[in-house]
Amino acid sequence: MLVSEIHQVSGVKLGVAEANIKYADRNDLLVIEIDEGASVSGVFTQNAFCAAPVIVGKHHLGFGNTRFLVINSGNANACTGDQGLADAKQTCNALAKIADVRAEQVIPFSTGVIGEDLPMDRICKALPLAFSKLNAEAWREAAKAIMTTDTVAKIASQKFEFDGEEITVTGIAKGAGMICPNMATMLSYVATDAVVAQGVLDELVTRAVDSSFNRISIDGDTSTNDASILIATGHAGHEQINEARGELFEALLSALVDVHQSLAKQIVKDGEGATKFVSVIVESGTNKEECLQVAYSVANSPLVKTALFASDPNWGRIVMAIGKSDVPNLKSEKIDVWLDDVLVVKNGTRAQSYSEEAGEAVLQKNEFSIRIALHRGTETETVWTSDLSHEYIQINAEYRT
Amino acid sequence: MLVSEIHQVSGVKLGVAEANIKYADRNDLLVIEIDEGASVSGVFTQNAFCAAPVIVGKHHLGFGNTRFLVINSGNANACTGDQGLADAKQTCNALAKIADVRAEQVIPFSTGVIGEDLPMDRICKALPLAFSKLNAEAWREAAKAIMTTDTVAKIASQKFEFDGEEITVTGIAKGAGMICPNMATMLSYVATDAVVAQGVLDELVTRAVDSSFNRISIDGDTSTNDASILIATGHAGHEQINEARGELFEALLSALVDVHQSLAKQIVKDGEGATKFVSVIVESGTNKEECLQVAYSVANSPLVKTALFASDPNWGRIVMAIGKSDVPNLKSEKIDVWLDDVLVVKNGTRAQSYSEEAGEAVLQKNEFSIRIALHRGTETETVWTSDLSHEYIQINAEYRT
Repeated sequence: MLVSEIHQVSGVKLGVAEANIKYADRNDLLVIEIDEGASVSGVFTQNAFCAAPVIVGKHHLGFGNTRFLVINSGNANACTGDQGLADAKQTCNALAKIADVRAEQVIPFSTGVIGEDLPMDRICKALPLAFSKLNAEAWREAAKAIMTTDTVAKIASQKFEFDGEEITVTGIAKGAGMICPNMATMLSYVATDAVVAQGVLDELVTRAVDSSFNRISIDGDTSTNDASILIATGHAGHEQINEARGELFEALLSALVDVHQSLAKQIVKDGEGATKFVSVIVESGTNKEECLQVAYSVANSPLVKTALFASDPNWGRIVMAIGKSDVPNLKSEKIDVWLDDVLVVKNGTRAQSYSEEAGEAVLQKNEFSIRIALHRGTETETVWTSDLSHEYIQINAEYRT
Repeated sequence: MLVSEIHQVSGVKLGVAEANIKYADRNDLLVIEIDEGASVSGVFTQNAFCAAPVIVGKHHLGFGNTRFLVINSGNANACTGDQGLADAKQTCNALAKIADVRAEQVIPFSTGVIGEDLPMDRICKALPLAFSKLNAEAWREAAKAIMTTDTVAKIASQKFEFDGEEITVTGIAKGAGMICPNMATMLSYVATDAVVAQGVLDELVTRAVDSSFNRISIDGDTSTNDASILIATGHAGHEQINEARGELFEALLSALVDVHQSLAKQIVKDGEGATKFVSVIVESGTNKEECLQVAYSVANSPLVKTALFASDPNWGRIVMAIGKSDVPNLKSEKIDVWLDDVLVVKNGTRAQSYSEEAGEAVLQKNEFSIRIALHRGTETETVWTSDLSHEYIQINAEYRT
């Protein structure tokens, strides 16, 4: 539903080009143009080694009036020292010159191999082409241009009506490393034509990312290059959404969460070598933190993940992962576990009604849930994960060769 | 050196038998007899789901005067509820009756599949045989009987002299799941003929485990069944080591650390599908905690581990893993990284002297180190890890089939 039709966002144009940075015969450079007067917000990696484009990009975003985003795939421009910073700035300068804006109005992004210098000659040569191709329809080409180990382009789009006014939200993302997503670069660019004050947009991007990309990663840790950008062009005809919030704020937040969650789920499904999509739901917890702690402990356990790959309902590994989650005073004898609707563990031990056949039937599916009830509160949290397959090793052992 | 010759420990006898618990045609039941008057200490799993034998064992150990340990492989007796507790107690009762001791003088241990009831008939049938075979020489047979996914038996032995008195330390261990060792059961049994007061023995086992098994696991997290037991029979002729400690205390601690580290390294080398043994050394940290935090972040990263498997000096992944370690105020621009003696990263970026060939030459080896200098203090910590290979997936996807 979300992916079938891609709605253009008035005030946003996209253009791609082949710069031959690492990949041959494909587009690897993307320019996004944002109309004058738009608001732009972003959240960036917390990694202590943040890449040169992140440093430059955060700085430029601070000036406001952002007009262009420029993204290359194939090279992360990370751990490249002063040369990397100079290259990120030069990329902005080059595009600014072509577009007749200030360099500070351009935000640079890079994704790919770490520790190699950007091929500036090839990037600067391809920039005019990408610029010349800018158009409002190129969302799908844009999603493809930013792929690295991704096997499919990630894109989501939604429209909703409010007081007779139609508002659009469309976004793209890249990212595929699922066992430890905090290590694989995740980039997302979502745009809406809604009219949103800067401070409110900052809140919206934080909340949308928190309920989507941060539900597929550990502790919100991020790679050297991660970034999520939210653009509000303000072309829709409604009154500006400001600090007073109101119903339209809630409607927009809901649409943004949908689009971000769709992109996040697409990333999990395209997990390196992933064959299953698993929702880990932890309910009746004292607070959200402990629900997430238990959910991540299960979702990130390599032993659980290999059992999922084997379609083996090895619930002992799920129970071990719950037990090692380090949540204070967890009472194992209160905990129930389901695979979809099959009750597997009751009060901390195998449920009397459980049969291995029933568990196997669930794990044969491509999509299912592991649901865990802590029975000590009213909070629920969900994280999404995939299995750990032979192909994961293959992809990650051979990535640079 | 440690492994070639196995020294008997006066006051300890071992007996094995085939109980056909899960494995056919091999010993899977071990009884260890400890002479009257010995001291016994243990450290057990912190997992919220601790197995029935752990609950019963900790309780029995509290009574003192432990005379027997009984260990079965193939079934963990974990998540087995009241039946599991009854089975663990029945195992103690059965052995106590044969040996004419109290049930509280027997400590039970189990390792293997979770969530299945112990086959009590077969265990009780095999106990008299294991008892009848008790002898001081059976360390190697004992090490084999407790194996599960292990491919080699783990055993270490050392003698040292103090004031003309010879003191022996011998131990066995099992455990093989290396990517997330906190999830795979680790058991160790180490004995010495030294004369040690109970309180001092408690300290010795904690310190020996902390510098060995806790250097191959995350945050000291443990599986449902983990346990390390230290026995001091008191048969050596020296004066008792008491709270005053002194030189003999230090000499014994040193021998215990050696034996425990040897066992821990054997576990890493037998890591499921492991092809490399890697020491991750973090130096010049402000404190031990931050050194360990960085070391574990690197040692536990699946992306680093797959690169190690591929013999790919993908130092960008090492740097990402350092960056995501969540150590406060880590300054990337101060950090240096070596692969053995090859300087790879200097001040947070690729070292000028570094060549891909030099990095590859190190990673071609079976054993090497990743050394990280934080340049902000004087502390150093080391953890040991292995790579992540195709075989890991194979073993863990097929463990129950």
